[in-house]
Amino acid sequence: MKQDILESYNRIFPYIHKTPVITSKTIDKMAGANLYFKCENFQKMGAFKMRGATNAILQLTAEQKQKGIVTHSSGNFAQALALAAKNLGVKAYIVMPSNAPEVKKSAVRGYGGEITECEPTLEARETTATKIQQEKGATFIHPFNDFNVILGNASAGKELLEKHTDLDLIIAPVGGGGLISGTALSAIAFGNNCKVIGAEPFAVDDAYRSMESGKIEQNTATDTIADGLKTSLGDITFNLINNHVEKIIRVSEEEIVSAMRLIWERMKIIVEPSSAVALAAVLNSKAEFTNKKVGVILSGGNVDLKKLPFK
Amino acid sequence: MKQDILESYNRIFPYIHKTPVITSKTIDKMAGANLYFKCENFQKMGAFKMRGATNAILQLTAEQKQKGIVTHSSGNFAQALALAAKNLGVKAYIVMPSNAPEVKKSAVRGYGGEITECEPTLEARETTATKIQQEKGATFIHPFNDFNVILGNASAGKELLEKHTDLDLIIAPVGGGGLISGTALSAIAFGNNCKVIGAEPFAVDDAYRSMESGKIEQNTATDTIADGLKTSLGDITFNLINNHVEKIIRVSEEEIVSAMRLIWERMKIIVEPSSAVALAAVLNSKAEFTNKKVGVILSGGNVDLKKLPFK
Repeated sequence: MKQDILESYNRIFPYIHKTPVITSKTIDKMAGANLYFKCENFQKMGAFKMRGATNAILQLTAEQKQKGIVTHSSGNFAQALALAAKNLGVKAYIVMPSNAPEVKKSAVRGYGGEITECEPTLEARETTATKIQQEKGATFIHPFNDFNVILGNASAGKELLEKHTDLDLIIAPVGGGGLISGTALSAIAFGNNCKVIGAEPFAVDDAYRSMESGKIEQNTATDTIADGLKTSLGDITFNLINNHVEKIIRVSEEEIVSAMRLIWERMKIIVEPSSAVALAAVLNSKAEFTNKKVGVILSGGNVDLKKLPFK
Repeated sequence: MKQDILESYNRIFPYIHKTPVITSKTIDKMAGANLYFKCENFQKMGAFKMRGATNAILQLTAEQKQKGIVTHSSGNFAQALALAAKNLGVKAYIVMPSNAPEVKKSAVRGYGGEITECEPTLEARETTATKIQQEKGATFIHPFNDFNVILGNASAGKELLEKHTDLDLIIAPVGGGGLISGTALSAIAFGNNCKVIGAEPFAVDDAYRSMESGKIEQNTATDTIADGLKTSLGDITFNLINNHVEKIIRVSEEEIVSAMRLIWERMKIIVEPSSAVALAAVLNSKAEFTNKKVGVILSGGNVDLKKLPFK
């Protein structure tokens, strides 16, 4: 596993940023712990997804690359895959729901992705992607339930643990589980008995419930400000989380906004609500982290400045 | 001069952050230049003012320190002086206009500063400060028209030029002129024929007009979003600017907001409008900077998240 992560890292290294790790005395004091924030908000295109997308494309054969790739996503992965494909000279077909925000569509187009719009249902997204696979011979790349994507994501945890070898814990947000799965693999490979904890909004606590029930649970509602975390787990990510993640901490919407405000005001950096979920969990479950060295993965920084939650 | 800056730097070093310098390929492409952003928004208390305030207090005698310091300010300098004084175990009396935002007053109080409110006129501020000087024996420290404050501010330019020795230019915003004066001194001491340019809103272009007329001009209106730049120059800063600053570039309010948005969206960092003025100037006067290596001082990151200019 360690070898797989190292090989993925060497593969993607020329195409990604080695993001900084920053600290805040004020927030440490509030948390009663030493927090090391891994700034994937500074990653290319603004989120960790660039790592997994790049690794997945680089693992394709020359023939596959020549025919292009396809995914369906309304969020950061669509942009990441489009940009990674552009960097590697590969054609990217992106299936997006017709109600996706114009700003996200134009970002994908800006990175050279070819958008096919479909009805805003999972079924329509999958059907449309399958059709493009058949017509163009393009290879489908899943946003998170893909081992190469997970291995690419693992490089964030690897960089963090190389810089801070003695972390007791790493906490990361959980949506489809691609980031936390990669983080868990890195903690095993590069950590010194480093545990991994997930953070999730109460409103979309499918990962928490999945760990409780021992099978993949779905979200019935998706009413959270953390729009990157609405997805349910896939079979690969569920298995990795179930086996290697210590626990999932859930947070309220108020706690997310309050943690996001803290990061913006005190650290002077822009993170998206999904990233703030990890700090919110540290602050609502202090006993879990007291006096520990904790890596906090800030997953991304793509926000619509016209729609901020601060009041 | 070089020796003075080095001594100031060694004096304040334990009390300030050595802030990072960051770059953005996207913004470089837009500007047609290589920009090196010196991130004083990450400075302690969120602005470069921490440097000058700390240096000024450290230059006092033991007796002066024992009696405390006083200043009048409604902005970042009030907070910087309060925090610097706290760090050094010195009492800080801060005169603030009664209409200063509550958020700024509570920040000063949070840093242990003792606030005396007065009428919101320059005369009332000066009278109140003089009264405190007389009653408490406190030493008055001017926010910018003070050579020790300027020498402290110069440490930002020193750090920048140490890291990037071959800058052709440094651009910084101009309010009272304390930052650009220090930057100009650093450019002479540590630069390799490095020129310094100032940036100022059209709405408060007193420095531009002062350089034109050869004497200190005042602002009649102060209607700009860049609230740190409303002040007019002092005699010390005017002389330094007049002798050592190449020119002042003026920018519109729209250009400020647009540059601020660019920094927030592309660099994922929070800067205040006054900081964005420097990038706005680079973008509205591209010919001046084409293919050059340009240091851009991002002066601070203190904004009210409830009152953002993005539409």
